[in-house]
Amino acid sequence: MKDNPFQPGATRADQPEFTRDELGLAYRNSGALLELLSRDITPTGTHYLLIHFDVPQIAPETHVLDLKGAFDAPYSLSMAEIMDLPQITRPVTLECAGNGRAGMTPRPLSMPWSYEAVGTSEWTGTPLAPLIERAKPRASVQDFVFTGADFGYDKGVPHHYGRSLTPEELADLDAMLVWGMNGAPLLPQHGAPLRIIVPGWYGMASVKWLTSIEAIETRYQGFQQVQTYRFRAHAEDPGTPVNRIHVKSLMQPPGVPDWFTRARWLEPGRVTLQGRAWSGAGVPIAKVEVLLDGAWQEAELTGRADTYAWTGWRIDWEATPGTHELACRATDAKGNTQPLEPGYNTGGFANNEVHRVPVHVAGA
Amino acid sequence: MKDNPFQPGATRADQPEFTRDELGLAYRNSGALLELLSRDITPTGTHYLLIHFDVPQIAPETHVLDLKGAFDAPYSLSMAEIMDLPQITRPVTLECAGNGRAGMTPRPLSMPWSYEAVGTSEWTGTPLAPLIERAKPRASVQDFVFTGADFGYDKGVPHHYGRSLTPEELADLDAMLVWGMNGAPLLPQHGAPLRIIVPGWYGMASVKWLTSIEAIETRYQGFQQVQTYRFRAHAEDPGTPVNRIHVKSLMQPPGVPDWFTRARWLEPGRVTLQGRAWSGAGVPIAKVEVLLDGAWQEAELTGRADTYAWTGWRIDWEATPGTHELACRATDAKGNTQPLEPGYNTGGFANNEVHRVPVHVAGA
Repeated sequence: MKDNPFQPGATRADQPEFTRDELGLAYRNSGALLELLSRDITPTGTHYLLIHFDVPQIAPETHVLDLKGAFDAPYSLSMAEIMDLPQITRPVTLECAGNGRAGMTPRPLSMPWSYEAVGTSEWTGTPLAPLIERAKPRASVQDFVFTGADFGYDKGVPHHYGRSLTPEELADLDAMLVWGMNGAPLLPQHGAPLRIIVPGWYGMASVKWLTSIEAIETRYQGFQQVQTYRFRAHAEDPGTPVNRIHVKSLMQPPGVPDWFTRARWLEPGRVTLQGRAWSGAGVPIAKVEVLLDGAWQEAELTGRADTYAWTGWRIDWEATPGTHELACRATDAKGNTQPLEPGYNTGGFANNEVHRVPVHVAGA
Repeated sequence: MKDNPFQPGATRADQPEFTRDELGLAYRNSGALLELLSRDITPTGTHYLLIHFDVPQIAPETHVLDLKGAFDAPYSLSMAEIMDLPQITRPVTLECAGNGRAGMTPRPLSMPWSYEAVGTSEWTGTPLAPLIERAKPRASVQDFVFTGADFGYDKGVPHHYGRSLTPEELADLDAMLVWGMNGAPLLPQHGAPLRIIVPGWYGMASVKWLTSIEAIETRYQGFQQVQTYRFRAHAEDPGTPVNRIHVKSLMQPPGVPDWFTRARWLEPGRVTLQGRAWSGAGVPIAKVEVLLDGAWQEAELTGRADTYAWTGWRIDWEATPGTHELACRATDAKGNTQPLEPGYNTGGFANNEVHRVPVHVAGA
């Protein structure tokens, strides 16, 4: 390491500034550690968190899930009864709908994610659809509403966190009722003792701290369903719902970091670049391209073929002295690919622009 | 809930802004969730993280700890040999030396912690001093150097993370060699497979991903020992070392939050306020006072008497309609107490100003 680009106190030139409220969310809503993208399963405690209100503290011994509303056979289940149901374990990649928000201009004010709000865990539970069928929903049901124990205000509206799925969506999705994560009980911050996982959709659908499933004969008008998590071009735009995860990829940053700027430094010579790619609603990744010395080159896909978990990728690069901007771009089997520049919507949702990784390669 | 202080898009008036580099650190270095302060032990995955470089990924099967340098009987240990040593488990409160940095004026540029960089885990390992004695340090030894596998740059200086303790400090402190946390193996982000815990000192002393303990016959001059983690009044000040944790307390914010501002809302009437208090180097907490309607009132101390773990406290408050600023202030058995305003040092270390919690109580 003969030369050294890291001056004391150096910061990047493009420094928009963030408010204390945004930072307050960043303390709570932790992101992935990109150097751990080499792992199929995100280590426990490093899976991203997006917690709207406070983490509820729920005693599993007395917790009950109520299936209520427009069912002909409504019922309730204790945690013991739920854990006696047919058990499945499935790796699922979850991503926050707000991931990439800080890359948009103007920047929507909310949790200012850069690239980190994604992770893959092994979720253990039981399929959700048969449980709901067992309660015999009436033919008139338009929505199943999933309500969490978490409560607070957003834009002045007090509410329990809640989301819904239509009967058609429920039939189409492999949603799970979940009590375990990576071989252990759910942790408090991930929804203990009970949550749902909606594979292929952004994380807002996977309601945590689940207390009830209500069948209703109208469309659900809950705050988190209709006032946020919508693609709106401007404040008056009614918009369209955010649901399926958009195709995306990330690179494990090569070399070693500078503490403060997180800038990367590496030695010249061959380096294997690697990362992850995923898409929504079970669509597999078709290819990942990596920008090397100005040209997009196709990477080798590695790792798991599980429908709802991310895919690994790798490619070798001959690193030459100087400063380079690497990037990666995934394309899924339906031909969806990542844009080179961020789009815009008022909520800052689903920015899947390519991941750019500046690196400094030492002089020869 | 008749009135409502949360306007859409409202932010607090005192909004200093933060740089993208600071936010980049906030993504990685996650803090405690203050609503979980009700728990003696911080749930796994919510213990604060301060990771200087990248998390190293170390295979425990082949990992070796070397005791080397000015020892008459240097030796090495495999993880299997280490885990056969006499085993102890101890709850220890760790706090980042930079906790509170964002409260200082001017704000030192580094991880911009507010109050969240603290946690208590049950650490499992073996006492450190007997292991070092077994290697027969020479009488001339001035420092024992603990080096981690993590490597990177800080202020232009490439280095493995390293810290030292003098023979006197080692004899005085109940330092542990640690391989377990909350009944499970150390997680990658907490130093797997091996770290040290130095109870009573700020977290920088508790070296993670430990690879060697070297006895040296001079004073250690490593970057993390002499260039940072010092109290300096100005850039040319040689300063004094940061070591023992300063007395501090936190309050679990009462009521329910607003998503964006984290402002708190509660109903009028009796509310039990609770939180945690701790001090450094095994000094117990003598009292906690809480600012209620302009007067400091003494809280009841609850919970554990373990020397190195935080203490619980609680006090009832009659919440009356309007906006209030609550605060808590701990005093330890040596008479150290928390200042009402932050101090200043160039690194932003050890700000233990009282925790202030603004709350809005609904109209009657």
